[in-house]
Amino acid sequence: MSTDHPSGWITAADVARKAGVSRSAVSRTFTEGASVSPETREKVQRAAEALGYQVNMLARSMIQRQSNLVGVVVKGFDDPFLQSLLGPITHHLALRSLAPLLMDASEPAQLAKSLRHLLQYRIAGVILTSGTPPIQLAQEYLRLRVPVAMINRAPDLEGVDVVNSDHFEGGALAARTLLASGARKLVFLSSASTTYSARVRGEGFVQALAAAVQRGAASLRHFDASGATYAGGFEAAQTLLADTHNRPDGVFCANDVLACGLVDGARRQYGLQVPADFQVIGFDDIPMAGLSAYGLTTLRQNVDALAQSAVACLAERMAEPDMPSRTLQLPVALVTRATSRK
Amino acid sequence: MSTDHPSGWITAADVARKAGVSRSAVSRTFTEGASVSPETREKVQRAAEALGYQVNMLARSMIQRQSNLVGVVVKGFDDPFLQSLLGPITHHLALRSLAPLLMDASEPAQLAKSLRHLLQYRIAGVILTSGTPPIQLAQEYLRLRVPVAMINRAPDLEGVDVVNSDHFEGGALAARTLLASGARKLVFLSSASTTYSARVRGEGFVQALAAAVQRGAASLRHFDASGATYAGGFEAAQTLLADTHNRPDGVFCANDVLACGLVDGARRQYGLQVPADFQVIGFDDIPMAGLSAYGLTTLRQNVDALAQSAVACLAERMAEPDMPSRTLQLPVALVTRATSRK
Repeated sequence: MSTDHPSGWITAADVARKAGVSRSAVSRTFTEGASVSPETREKVQRAAEALGYQVNMLARSMIQRQSNLVGVVVKGFDDPFLQSLLGPITHHLALRSLAPLLMDASEPAQLAKSLRHLLQYRIAGVILTSGTPPIQLAQEYLRLRVPVAMINRAPDLEGVDVVNSDHFEGGALAARTLLASGARKLVFLSSASTTYSARVRGEGFVQALAAAVQRGAASLRHFDASGATYAGGFEAAQTLLADTHNRPDGVFCANDVLACGLVDGARRQYGLQVPADFQVIGFDDIPMAGLSAYGLTTLRQNVDALAQSAVACLAERMAEPDMPSRTLQLPVALVTRATSRK
Repeated sequence: MSTDHPSGWITAADVARKAGVSRSAVSRTFTEGASVSPETREKVQRAAEALGYQVNMLARSMIQRQSNLVGVVVKGFDDPFLQSLLGPITHHLALRSLAPLLMDASEPAQLAKSLRHLLQYRIAGVILTSGTPPIQLAQEYLRLRVPVAMINRAPDLEGVDVVNSDHFEGGALAARTLLASGARKLVFLSSASTTYSARVRGEGFVQALAAAVQRGAASLRHFDASGATYAGGFEAAQTLLADTHNRPDGVFCANDVLACGLVDGARRQYGLQVPADFQVIGFDDIPMAGLSAYGLTTLRQNVDALAQSAVACLAERMAEPDMPSRTLQLPVALVTRATSRK
């Protein structure tokens, strides 16, 4: 977008100048039902397109008259924790007469198009869910003055509200639980392409173990799976559990799908039983964690509260766009099932 | 909506009559940027509201100028098969520059509001997914001239395109597979509150077994779980497998979550192993079916093809609203894993 304005905004005057028409002709071209000659309309539209004026105009109409649409940006649909967020987000939007427009950030070719869509519908705001939609997206929305709320993301973008589970305390709780049940050879299982949430969970785990490690009462390893997925956990079991003399007796996994994969990998590849041979604690409490086949001990994120808070933040920011950024932290709860010992 | 018109549509003339203003005043009131006195605007708006004209107006503008929004109607977000459809639907809509507006039909109080939303955004069409959003919804859209496509629904609504997996052939394939592997005491496990898809799967199963049952070579029972869910399958195991002398040796489940619940229930409650003690075949091939803990033999629905076909039907009907109803049937594939014998 080329412009002389430091703000990056193209004005109707810019378009009028480029098209060689009056400012009022530009305005009429973009007002439904207003009268303008076909020639003038064509000139204005060509100039507007060349200057990227459309976006600006839409952003302006958004400020003047918002829709009830909220963009819900996900990165793919395969992550079970994300799947468990969609229902509550839709529910809490509906309670405020807002409707979710789904947008998949995992298809880069369609990102620009989706962004334009969102603007065309004068979206009232955007919710970026946990996981890995690129942060540039949030910056782009901010630039276009679209209110943004994020769930489980680093709170480092001015003007954006962030609602997080208390990942740090969750990690610490996992550490204390494993220590209290007698585990001494501990592992944090994560993946190299990690998310903000997973990183903070690991930090909480490590810090809560620091004293025990320092006095030699416990050992701690960090192990990266090929991905933070079921398949990643399943494969990790092969390497992590290969050395029969140095097997961990307690593994904290960055999320539940990793944990279920690890449990299945341990059973299938080494005939190991959980928690008899080693304990496992996950994070999220997705439906899979509660299946009888796993009975996973895990840290439960309150998806309903996360969705409710994100929607509330967004609604408040829609009413008052320039309010300072806020970060909310919601408690997590230990759900004790069959993969840890009492 | 009160009206003298057999079609159920309120016209601008009706509003003008009730408001005591000219037809042009009504038109100007609802045209952005057009001039109309505050008094007249107020009269028109009151009359329009009393008559329910808003919907009519929006429906009209929808015909004149569609948006790129497509309503995607789901009933709740917990069903894993539905979850697996959302990604492909979003993807195939995006390929045609269409964007999905999510709508949850499981909250009746919000249905009317959602419907109004969809109309306000001049939605280009609606996709009703499998499961149980009420058929009245589809009828309501039709009445408002919104193109509708449905996935895995009974093809009995004139003006609506339906894309189905071949549930009947899938059921028949399950029957032939179980018979060929030596199963003789067969059960179809479904639930009382069944869907169209589940019913047809059962019909295919029953019909393919009919000859064997008639000549006394096999027995067949239909068993209803408390719900077509994991918990329903888990509970069903208790009753279905209680009589040690009359246990089934082959169970075809109406979907995968029922099947996984049954497998876990059989293990947990009776220590039974699958397929050593009895064989299980599911339907859908959701991600859960592929987990090492289950390794479920199942009939795979092609979610990508279902989504692609539904979006294509909808796009064609958007271009030609009055074309005759179509029903597409997509093949399913047997995925042989660890719960059936060769």
